[in-house]
Amino acid sequence: MRNDGRQAADLRPVTIQRRFTSAAAGSVLLQAGGTMVLCTASVEEGVPPWKKAQQDLTGWVTGEYSMLPGSTSPRKRRDREKVDGRTTEIQRLIGRSLRSVVDMAALGPRTITIDCDVLQADGGTRTLCITGGFIALAEAVHSLSAVLTGGPVLTGSVAAVSVGIVGGVPLLDLDYSEDVRADVDFNVVMTGRGEFVEVQGTAERAPFTRDLLNQQLALAQSGIERLTQLQRGTLGTAWPANLGG
Amino acid sequence: MRNDGRQAADLRPVTIQRRFTSAAAGSVLLQAGGTMVLCTASVEEGVPPWKKAQQDLTGWVTGEYSMLPGSTSPRKRRDREKVDGRTTEIQRLIGRSLRSVVDMAALGPRTITIDCDVLQADGGTRTLCITGGFIALAEAVHSLSAVLTGGPVLTGSVAAVSVGIVGGVPLLDLDYSEDVRADVDFNVVMTGRGEFVEVQGTAERAPFTRDLLNQQLALAQSGIERLTQLQRGTLGTAWPANLGG
Amino acid sequence: MRNDGRQAADLRPVTIQRRFTSAAAGSVLLQAGGTMVLCTASVEEGVPPWKKAQQDLTGWVTGEYSMLPGSTSPRKRRDREKVDGRTTEIQRLIGRSLRSVVDMAALGPRTITIDCDVLQADGGTRTLCITGGFIALAEAVHSLSAVLTGGPVLTGSVAAVSVGIVGGVPLLDLDYSEDVRADVDFNVVMTGRGEFVEVQGTAERAPFTRDLLNQQLALAQSGIERLTQLQRGTLGTAWPANLGG
Amino acid sequence: MRNDGRQAADLRPVTIQRRFTSAAAGSVLLQAGGTMVLCTASVEEGVPPWKKAQQDLTGWVTGEYSMLPGSTSPRKRRDREKVDGRTTEIQRLIGRSLRSVVDMAALGPRTITIDCDVLQADGGTRTLCITGGFIALAEAVHSLSAVLTGGPVLTGSVAAVSVGIVGGVPLLDLDYSEDVRADVDFNVVMTGRGEFVEVQGTAERAPFTRDLLNQQLALAQSGIERLTQLQRGTLGTAWPANLGG
Amino acid sequence: MRNDGRQAADLRPVTIQRRFTSAAAGSVLLQAGGTMVLCTASVEEGVPPWKKAQQDLTGWVTGEYSMLPGSTSPRKRRDREKVDGRTTEIQRLIGRSLRSVVDMAALGPRTITIDCDVLQADGGTRTLCITGGFIALAEAVHSLSAVLTGGPVLTGSVAAVSVGIVGGVPLLDLDYSEDVRADVDFNVVMTGRGEFVEVQGTAERAPFTRDLLNQQLALAQSGIERLTQLQRGTLGTAWPANLGG
Amino acid sequence: MRNDGRQAADLRPVTIQRRFTSAAAGSVLLQAGGTMVLCTASVEEGVPPWKKAQQDLTGWVTGEYSMLPGSTSPRKRRDREKVDGRTTEIQRLIGRSLRSVVDMAALGPRTITIDCDVLQADGGTRTLCITGGFIALAEAVHSLSAVLTGGPVLTGSVAAVSVGIVGGVPLLDLDYSEDVRADVDFNVVMTGRGEFVEVQGTAERAPFTRDLLNQQLALAQSGIERLTQLQRGTLGTAWPANLGG
Repeated sequence: MRNDGRQAADLRPVTIQRRFTSAAAGSVLLQAGGTMVLCTASVEEGVPPWKKAQQDLTGWVTGEYSMLPGSTSPRKRRDREKVDGRTTEIQRLIGRSLRSVVDMAALGPRTITIDCDVLQADGGTRTLCITGGFIALAEAVHSLSAVLTGGPVLTGSVAAVSVGIVGGVPLLDLDYSEDVRADVDFNVVMTGRGEFVEVQGTAERAPFTRDLLNQQLALAQSGIERLTQLQRGTLGTAWPANLGG
Repeated sequence: MRNDGRQAADLRPVTIQRRFTSAAAGSVLLQAGGTMVLCTASVEEGVPPWKKAQQDLTGWVTGEYSMLPGSTSPRKRRDREKVDGRTTEIQRLIGRSLRSVVDMAALGPRTITIDCDVLQADGGTRTLCITGGFIALAEAVHSLSAVLTGGPVLTGSVAAVSVGIVGGVPLLDLDYSEDVRADVDFNVVMTGRGEFVEVQGTAERAPFTRDLLNQQLALAQSGIERLTQLQRGTLGTAWPANLGG
Repeated sequence: MRNDGRQAADLRPVTIQRRFTSAAAGSVLLQAGGTMVLCTASVEEGVPPWKKAQQDLTGWVTGEYSMLPGSTSPRKRRDREKVDGRTTEIQRLIGRSLRSVVDMAALGPRTITIDCDVLQADGGTRTLCITGGFIALAEAVHSLSAVLTGGPVLTGSVAAVSVGIVGGVPLLDLDYSEDVRADVDFNVVMTGRGEFVEVQGTAERAPFTRDLLNQQLALAQSGIERLTQLQRGTLGTAWPANLGG
Repeated sequence: MRNDGRQAADLRPVTIQRRFTSAAAGSVLLQAGGTMVLCTASVEEGVPPWKKAQQDLTGWVTGEYSMLPGSTSPRKRRDREKVDGRTTEIQRLIGRSLRSVVDMAALGPRTITIDCDVLQADGGTRTLCITGGFIALAEAVHSLSAVLTGGPVLTGSVAAVSVGIVGGVPLLDLDYSEDVRADVDFNVVMTGRGEFVEVQGTAERAPFTRDLLNQQLALAQSGIERLTQLQRGTLGTAWPANLGG
Repeated sequence: MRNDGRQAADLRPVTIQRRFTSAAAGSVLLQAGGTMVLCTASVEEGVPPWKKAQQDLTGWVTGEYSMLPGSTSPRKRRDREKVDGRTTEIQRLIGRSLRSVVDMAALGPRTITIDCDVLQADGGTRTLCITGGFIALAEAVHSLSAVLTGGPVLTGSVAAVSVGIVGGVPLLDLDYSEDVRADVDFNVVMTGRGEFVEVQGTAERAPFTRDLLNQQLALAQSGIERLTQLQRGTLGTAWPANLGG
Repeated sequence: MRNDGRQAADLRPVTIQRRFTSAAAGSVLLQAGGTMVLCTASVEEGVPPWKKAQQDLTGWVTGEYSMLPGSTSPRKRRDREKVDGRTTEIQRLIGRSLRSVVDMAALGPRTITIDCDVLQADGGTRTLCITGGFIALAEAVHSLSAVLTGGPVLTGSVAAVSVGIVGGVPLLDLDYSEDVRADVDFNVVMTGRGEFVEVQGTAERAPFTRDLLNQQLALAQSGIERLTQLQRGTLGTAWPANLGG
């Protein structure tokens, strides 16, 4: 049994507070165990300069990730002069994952930025940001429904979870204390239809076999199914109609 | 009457959620009308390099301020390559204000960083950060009571509020819609004993007379008295005993 | 008596050398005691990008502040990779103060930059820069009189001085040795008509009462009156005619 | 058949020039089709500051990656003011991959930096850098054999290859023209013993099924076996004796 | 006799590999003794922003210089956050030298960037980059001959060499071990017609007389004649026809 | 005849104001025609980090160069985020030139920084900075005479001047209007004994012959003789005794 009483295939308890703030078009506060993230989706008319230069007027979705300094102990310094490598990697992952379910032509010449700010960090922040980022994105898209008339913008839903091998045993949704002891660390992003969007596995301590890789993917798949249900329940009528019930 | 129904001398409704997060030694979520800030206080053993270089082993308290991108509409870009001038100015104000009530010798060789992150901005963010920053600071100092044996660390309490002149009328605690129309903008920081710590007044549109200056200071004084009571009520037994009831 | 023989309400001796250099449209070298600043005013056709983006073709006035490395002992490092917080704060103050007396519509689509370079620093540099900056600005505006035909550009004059409390006594125009011992440090900016533009008071060591605040403002007011006379005498026929004699 | 005549499971032709330069302890020029990289391994006594701060005197291996401006058409701008996100991601991958086969205690208090400079880019640069980086690393370790007496430093060999799905078909070792058309892009890093070190798969265009994931991993595995044989042949007596023949 | 057996007036052995890479329009690998540089010439349509702003549509040629980290022992850190002063100086020299033989009007609205990357450094890198840079430039210009119809682009050839005074004796083409012992260090750039383009002499240790200056210039002149012959031999039919045989 | 009435071999009129400021150990304001520079010499105990790392406790002299924004028309932007290439080049030249006459062992473990700030620019700023920098340096060394007891610190004097070819004619000490029309631009640094320290000649427009090179050096030599006399006259008893009268 795990130190918080979970079984190997259990997610941490999740609480979701939709519309936690109101300035941005989409906003959600997610907690999974001790990890707490605020995801907002801001809509701007126009496309990024590099798209403009190519005269490409389809839309764009991008993600930013940041940990508040007080989210960890000891305190984490702010990225104020340059962004550290881990942050860069995470926000590229968030952006790619969310873009994989967006029809940019249907979105049209506007940019949606998903800001994921970690208020408290206890493992699994990047995957929680993807799961929450989709909720904020869907809400923002829903808020634009009057102006988006070129067919469904969201072609799927997307959610993510971490898995890993701790003491030889594959575990779902590692908290920080498990993460630091893990031999292998996997982040898996999937659509609500059960297809893979991203698979990122790293042997932190010891290379791993094909068989252990398969066990971890199975755990991730079951966790993501449950997270997809939570997303749908939270969004209610803002859940994209074209994705079914 | 003001657009939210307040009188000239009314504060916006304030809600305070102490210990909103638990990683940092002090943590509080404050809302005043539409403005929402998260203040955390992180304690680190040791003093900043410039103090070390002077072999000064008394403590240090510093503040950082940041607006989350989704806190405003349109979205605010992150300060990731350089900190903008307004942010620099605000965090210097926060640090100075909080230090004015700290006995650094009693704090001893440790650094407390007050991080003020604005989750939503609707005017008066810098003053709300000082008011909330003191709560987080007091909580962090309280959590250190076993190790801080050199007498009271906090020699006073500190709170802040904005005042301004809108349409010729002095108003307390401007919201954003009032702030953009104000001819004069004052930020006032005072101790719980009614003394001034900082007075920063700027004629945004039109120079002002000595008489209007006096009226604004009187409004600020009354607002800060009420904020001091809220701080005391929130902190309960963590309110510094030496400051009386 | 003060260490240079002054009374509490005395300014330091001031010398002003108009047109010290000739490349810029306005140029003045000011000395107040041991503090020496060179203020130049450069005119550029066009407005800053952020104004252009708003299709706002009224003018702009901005200030920059810098201390030469040899202006102090020990030497001050140059701000070559990032501008320090104190510099940012000071140049924002200079810009705001000068803009408070400029009619941007009358200035039209041009930008005047007031560069304040401190050749020697002995306290009160920021206020001397405002007082000198106005002279350079007025000279530059005067040099444009043939092209500025939309009414008076300068709606007032502006000057500044520091006051503070040293050993319990309010003093006017602190030099460096007084400044480091001051309990309170005030910078006051006023128009030639006796109205306030900026009031910035900081309790460096001990919070202060309303009564001491009032005494300091009175000292500042009297000092600024004398500085205004010096500005007028220096500018001669370049003093804006609409401001009277 | 592919545009250069290869079958789906074929690697591009590889040429390896060991000791292309002589200033660094290890140096190798690798070409795979049109992609050409120079990998050097430089040894420095001492450990990075963050290890020193933890009084950890075991060794460290890190990687840096850069594309020469002339390596592509159009020319690629140099990363001279900040490192772009893709570069950061790649060099973190190179470092993690190589560290997975290094016994840091046996390496002792020294740092080996593997510099991977891309002289020409035609797809698969990051994986070729890992394959070549291991050769440079092994050569550098071999050159230290007189001073490294704490047992084998290299606990395995490591090599990498890309796979992807183009037009629905899984292909090994994509060149640039294939890469831009790929629906899925996988980078796989494995040890010479056939275990996984890193698996990074991204749905560039369309999410993919578990079955296609499996086919891609099988292709990668066969490619890496051949690359391991080339590494062994190139290194000759510098191949770590403890890894067998 | 010198430590590699050369006479005072001998160049180091030079090997030149034209078209070492093929992505850029011009590419050459040069070795002079232990120094190895890769020069590429990349052509971009359009002119730099500062030329565009002046509505100047004549062409531009610029140079960049960089040492790969593994080119020296100990390893050289990459210039990734700012370019060091020596690098800046060298690339300005390379650009000026190459531009001195280019007719920008004949080049028309395009920019050629000569990238000089040092793969191994053993003295004389900047002069070898100029000599090689001209080869890459001539090749790029030759590749454009179909579109460049406004007369000869190259009005001359250019090459460079270092000279210095070691132990009182003027020597041609210093290697690193000579360079560090030199009292005077001269870099000389000349055209193929024997005129000076740049003369940069520095007394590293002891000021020098007019007579020694003259002896050094004579040595440089003879070395550059031989380098010009090598450039011509390498370029073959790509040697500009207007420069004669 | 030149546009200000000078002959080809004439210097511009020079005025020198020693001890223009008093915070730094050495300070001089120099004017040559329309060019005006302030040179200060600041002494700090201790040596730069890179010398300390080598346990080298001999002294160090370095130079910094900057143009005030108001020194030219149009205004020059401040180097506040990065130093431009020209500035880097100039301050390296100033530092090397001054160091060529300093006995670092005699100076001992202290650093002298020569700050050269251009108050007005009309050509020849870098050479005037060297000539003035030597005066500030000599004054600072003189001020240290009580503590510098290891023999003469200054082994010579140093001065500099520009020469160039305008309209085919070699001219001494170009002003800005001549500089922009020059075909060749030479900066020459020499000791008071007539030896060369730096020779930097650039064909701005057309390569030049050996004969024209010789004529320019002769002009420079005669100009520097006169500047040396001015330095000696200005310094008076602060002129290093060991350099004779």
